[in-house]
Amino acid sequence: MYSFKNDYSEGAHPSILKSLMKNNLDQQNGYGDDDYSLKAKECLKEKMGNPDAAVYFVSGGTQANLLVISALLRTHEAVISAATGHIFANETGAVELTGHKVIAVEGQNGKITASDIQNAVDSHQLRPHAVKPKMVYISNSTEIGTVYNKTELWEIAAACRALDLILFMDGARLGHALTAEGNDLTLADISHLTDVFYIGGTKNGALFGEAIVFKNSSLCSEFDYVLKQRGALLAKGRVLGIQFYELFREDLYFTLAAKANGYAQQIAEAISKAGYEFLTQPATNQLFPILPKKVIARLHEKFAFYVWKEIDKRSAAVRIITSWATDQKWVDEFAEDIKNSTNPKLDRISGKGK
Amino acid sequence: MYSFKNDYSEGAHPSILKSLMKNNLDQQNGYGDDDYSLKAKECLKEKMGNPDAAVYFVSGGTQANLLVISALLRTHEAVISAATGHIFANETGAVELTGHKVIAVEGQNGKITASDIQNAVDSHQLRPHAVKPKMVYISNSTEIGTVYNKTELWEIAAACRALDLILFMDGARLGHALTAEGNDLTLADISHLTDVFYIGGTKNGALFGEAIVFKNSSLCSEFDYVLKQRGALLAKGRVLGIQFYELFREDLYFTLAAKANGYAQQIAEAISKAGYEFLTQPATNQLFPILPKKVIARLHEKFAFYVWKEIDKRSAAVRIITSWATDQKWVDEFAEDIKNSTNPKLDRISGKGK
Amino acid sequence: MYSFKNDYSEGAHPSILKSLMKNNLDQQNGYGDDDYSLKAKECLKEKMGNPDAAVYFVSGGTQANLLVISALLRTHEAVISAATGHIFANETGAVELTGHKVIAVEGQNGKITASDIQNAVDSHQLRPHAVKPKMVYISNSTEIGTVYNKTELWEIAAACRALDLILFMDGARLGHALTAEGNDLTLADISHLTDVFYIGGTKNGALFGEAIVFKNSSLCSEFDYVLKQRGALLAKGRVLGIQFYELFREDLYFTLAAKANGYAQQIAEAISKAGYEFLTQPATNQLFPILPKKVIARLHEKFAFYVWKEIDKRSAAVRIITSWATDQKWVDEFAEDIKNSTNPKLDRISGKGK
Amino acid sequence: MYSFKNDYSEGAHPSILKSLMKNNLDQQNGYGDDDYSLKAKECLKEKMGNPDAAVYFVSGGTQANLLVISALLRTHEAVISAATGHIFANETGAVELTGHKVIAVEGQNGKITASDIQNAVDSHQLRPHAVKPKMVYISNSTEIGTVYNKTELWEIAAACRALDLILFMDGARLGHALTAEGNDLTLADISHLTDVFYIGGTKNGALFGEAIVFKNSSLCSEFDYVLKQRGALLAKGRVLGIQFYELFREDLYFTLAAKANGYAQQIAEAISKAGYEFLTQPATNQLFPILPKKVIARLHEKFAFYVWKEIDKRSAAVRIITSWATDQKWVDEFAEDIKNSTNPKLDRISGKGK
Repeated sequence: MYSFKNDYSEGAHPSILKSLMKNNLDQQNGYGDDDYSLKAKECLKEKMGNPDAAVYFVSGGTQANLLVISALLRTHEAVISAATGHIFANETGAVELTGHKVIAVEGQNGKITASDIQNAVDSHQLRPHAVKPKMVYISNSTEIGTVYNKTELWEIAAACRALDLILFMDGARLGHALTAEGNDLTLADISHLTDVFYIGGTKNGALFGEAIVFKNSSLCSEFDYVLKQRGALLAKGRVLGIQFYELFREDLYFTLAAKANGYAQQIAEAISKAGYEFLTQPATNQLFPILPKKVIARLHEKFAFYVWKEIDKRSAAVRIITSWATDQKWVDEFAEDIKNSTNPKLDRISGKGK
Repeated sequence: MYSFKNDYSEGAHPSILKSLMKNNLDQQNGYGDDDYSLKAKECLKEKMGNPDAAVYFVSGGTQANLLVISALLRTHEAVISAATGHIFANETGAVELTGHKVIAVEGQNGKITASDIQNAVDSHQLRPHAVKPKMVYISNSTEIGTVYNKTELWEIAAACRALDLILFMDGARLGHALTAEGNDLTLADISHLTDVFYIGGTKNGALFGEAIVFKNSSLCSEFDYVLKQRGALLAKGRVLGIQFYELFREDLYFTLAAKANGYAQQIAEAISKAGYEFLTQPATNQLFPILPKKVIARLHEKFAFYVWKEIDKRSAAVRIITSWATDQKWVDEFAEDIKNSTNPKLDRISGKGK
Repeated sequence: MYSFKNDYSEGAHPSILKSLMKNNLDQQNGYGDDDYSLKAKECLKEKMGNPDAAVYFVSGGTQANLLVISALLRTHEAVISAATGHIFANETGAVELTGHKVIAVEGQNGKITASDIQNAVDSHQLRPHAVKPKMVYISNSTEIGTVYNKTELWEIAAACRALDLILFMDGARLGHALTAEGNDLTLADISHLTDVFYIGGTKNGALFGEAIVFKNSSLCSEFDYVLKQRGALLAKGRVLGIQFYELFREDLYFTLAAKANGYAQQIAEAISKAGYEFLTQPATNQLFPILPKKVIARLHEKFAFYVWKEIDKRSAAVRIITSWATDQKWVDEFAEDIKNSTNPKLDRISGKGK
Repeated sequence: MYSFKNDYSEGAHPSILKSLMKNNLDQQNGYGDDDYSLKAKECLKEKMGNPDAAVYFVSGGTQANLLVISALLRTHEAVISAATGHIFANETGAVELTGHKVIAVEGQNGKITASDIQNAVDSHQLRPHAVKPKMVYISNSTEIGTVYNKTELWEIAAACRALDLILFMDGARLGHALTAEGNDLTLADISHLTDVFYIGGTKNGALFGEAIVFKNSSLCSEFDYVLKQRGALLAKGRVLGIQFYELFREDLYFTLAAKANGYAQQIAEAISKAGYEFLTQPATNQLFPILPKKVIARLHEKFAFYVWKEIDKRSAAVRIITSWATDQKWVDEFAEDIKNSTNPKLDRISGKGK
């Protein structure tokens, strides 16, 4: 069985492991005051062209989300998110546990617009009986693989400024967004247009780790206390610093993401050629093709992946995810199986028995 | 400068890094359902002789503490801890943030007794105006390097049973306790006498990671939700599983702790021989010698360590910590400097100018 | 100006004030252990035919909701509510502040069905990434004046039992529901079919106060601690006890609610006769008629009430609320004005100048 | 049995009940926007000579404490309190439930000094591992009946300013403090020297209710949201407004407190004359005399009061509390019994059998 279930099935990119090994016995300060973390932060700030930015490394995405939201909002202040947003749908109420309501808006293709934001604000005016919208949370790429373009992000940022809302981008798969075909945003743009975002390492080359970036340090005063009080401050911060320095010093981060997107594109093309449709248009390393259930059953004999959503009695949308660690051999085999799946003579696509 | 500041100045034991490298591209399930985590859990349960135990791996000690306490107590239930306890003194109110009061008792040498527990319960009887004591938190080894012996732990456990209190042991440095000279407790004893404890990896060989052990799984029903909701569930749980398997499959964990204790013992002996006293008797890898401020100043030219507490105008207690990664060469040099420090003729102990 | 804005514009029913005065200097225990509270609890348990019930008096509805939900659920457990539910829409995220997500379902006419509940559970199966639905919250009467009948409530209760969900009824306006025309539920039924509910005093005769009723005391062990820790335990609990005893000893509570419903019915009939429609069919003391904006403007010269929702350019739904304290004279005048509002000759409905 | 157990055994001062009755059917806005609340706030601001103050009425003392502290502090910020402070000892961890640690300092006679504050700050410098002290909480009168004088309060306020700490005074018994013999503080002084305080109604004439006073409104921006989200916003805010207006329009509040203090003084004098000592010197309406256990037993036949603390085998300190509602007849009888208690011939002090 080969797995296309997610982009965290393997370990880290070998360069990262090598770097961990190389620096292993070097004595360093604890709690993020190590040289590697400092160097990684400088490197990131340079890449973003934003010397005022403040960077913090944490272990995972849900942790990053709850830390940022609880640090920046008072409890009666709420976050606006797409209903598909990770904080609303997939984090077990982590944000609510910090005291905040998440206001879900429908959105489209996993994305929200300036007008969604305005509507959410308009419908929460009954002070003090309604929560006060104070932050907008977006994911790029989104939970269903789509990306924001520069105009869309600019409009959202303008709405946030106008409505006194903080703009927070969940970048668990930011690399895949910024290397997507047709993307016109850069890391510098993100840093400029949002108030805070994070750069996901876990799903793009790291053993684990996300880099939270505040546009400027005045936004996150005393964030060190917040990290510690919520159990997010690693004693050996060096482990995060070394990883992020390795990912960014020569843009390995973008190389890996582009690679993941490339594998997905090959699969997407095979699917399209075979005449199947997609739930949302392929853009990054997450694909949501709609396949006949028979085909799904056959593919499941060799490949692990999630069935996402029933479409009708005979077909369903599935989720295929690739990563920097995806094996070209299996991409080829999957593509081949898809191609053969439309051949009515074949009892089974390249099955085990072959 | 060589650092004796703490036991998390270096990376991981090389065997761990090698194992991470070896298994790196093996595809695994996420969120702790990987083969390595399962294997590590089985290994631990076997070492403890407790097939009913439930084991969870998390990133750090403060995280482990807040997860266990918030999962097991209702908010009006409180934790009894020594005033020197990590949750009371050094975790930025992490437990309070989950809604619980920590009741501090004075204790002695960082340890608390059955009678301290009884007193704390007695003084919180005014229901519902006083919080309800429901858990006892102890650290072994303690924050000042001392260890509990079997009798002491047995008495505490008996008091907890009698008073319907949960007994939780913080084992950030459990290895150092269980390999201390004179220790008569085993991992199996700990698992038997406490309701829940954790085995610290960060301070004894791992890159990061602690293993929370519940005596039986009925104690921690739905702990998976708790982990996720508090941002403590790593997508690549394999990273923790691989480390703990490596630490325990051939008892590397205990070998490393014994090594750390050994370095400390060498230093302690030099200190004793030189005629200096200790704030608490040396037992594990943390030493608290009382030294003349002049000697401290000279040592500080070559060695980094914390001044713990002023004793009088001319002397202070300092904290010296060793680890598995400590360098014998520097232990020797430190011992030599201590020995020379009592020589009135020497203007400076083996200073830079030598 | 006469106000139909809400049912808490006046003080308490005079019998309550008299009783407060009569017992004023009688010395009583604090914190709810007074004779009046005990008597009121016994009286309520008798009325419900449920000697196992446990009753607690608190100050207000939002307080009752957050206390019950936080006491009965673990933080990763969520509450299913109609999108119109008070806890979802009008309590400033009070439930979220206690750590719980509220799962909103669309519902119909402010009510939810067994099938809504099943759907909500079905869509939260991805353990541990989705919150765990554990409670159903319904309001009777609802926030838009409708009521549940016995069959509906029975079906919801059956669904809750089948799905291991706690059923909680917000009875801020329970009196108005139980005295509504066509209602077939009794206080005993409510106590039997729900796990916990509260009887609203504030909106039906009391100065303030709600009576939380748990079906049996095992459900709410240590609720006294919960009350105290959340600042909800009044020193002079007698003030709540005296009020609830007065409201229930001779069924004043139901008399007052029926009176409020009667006033609303008179207004509703006038509105219907005048040919206007309603957003939801009138049932209790809250009316949502759809009126031409011109008529609204004229009515607003004499009457205070909320515009609820724009229907189209020329008309809007408004909210008219009556209570036990409503003045018949003004009900008559409102009815008369409604009647005249359809007369095209009249420049203005019975205006100030008359 | 006559009770000296506390100052909330009776209802409200009759003037308050009369005022509630008089204004009962007057229609008013809900949620604190009623005329009575507005008038009461203006009245209070005038009495304090502070037009910038912002006043909010809530139901009880624990509620007031948790609202103020959670509104003004970030969760990693802690409150310094005397170990006898109500928030530390008697509120079931209400402050901790809002996420904050309470740092207890020993203090003396229930009071803390500027130097206690400095010490607490000094011992919490290990950022970010120690919580950040950010508020000082004092009670006046204290939980053991003592009062702060102007110099003491001025010194505390100066320390707070110097250390960037918010000064919060719990005034559950502020009336008794300000009318104590020898007191040199006024309501205006309190408003000037603290950042926020509250005026307790429950223990001095009201049915219930405390008035929170912020020195200026910039301190409590969005406190309306906080009240609502924590379930502390009464629909019929008028009930609180009417009470506080009645208490302050002609200084009834101070008259009642002085009366309570007067009763206590009579008892204290009888106790002194009889040759008994006090645990803390009598100052307000709480007395802590040390009596022989035999005498306590006899007094307990007629009087209810708490035994506070065992002193030795033969004697204990008890707590005697008087209030505006105390009956002179029973004060006299208590005094008489105390006087007779020292007569060795009497088998029992004015016992039942007489």
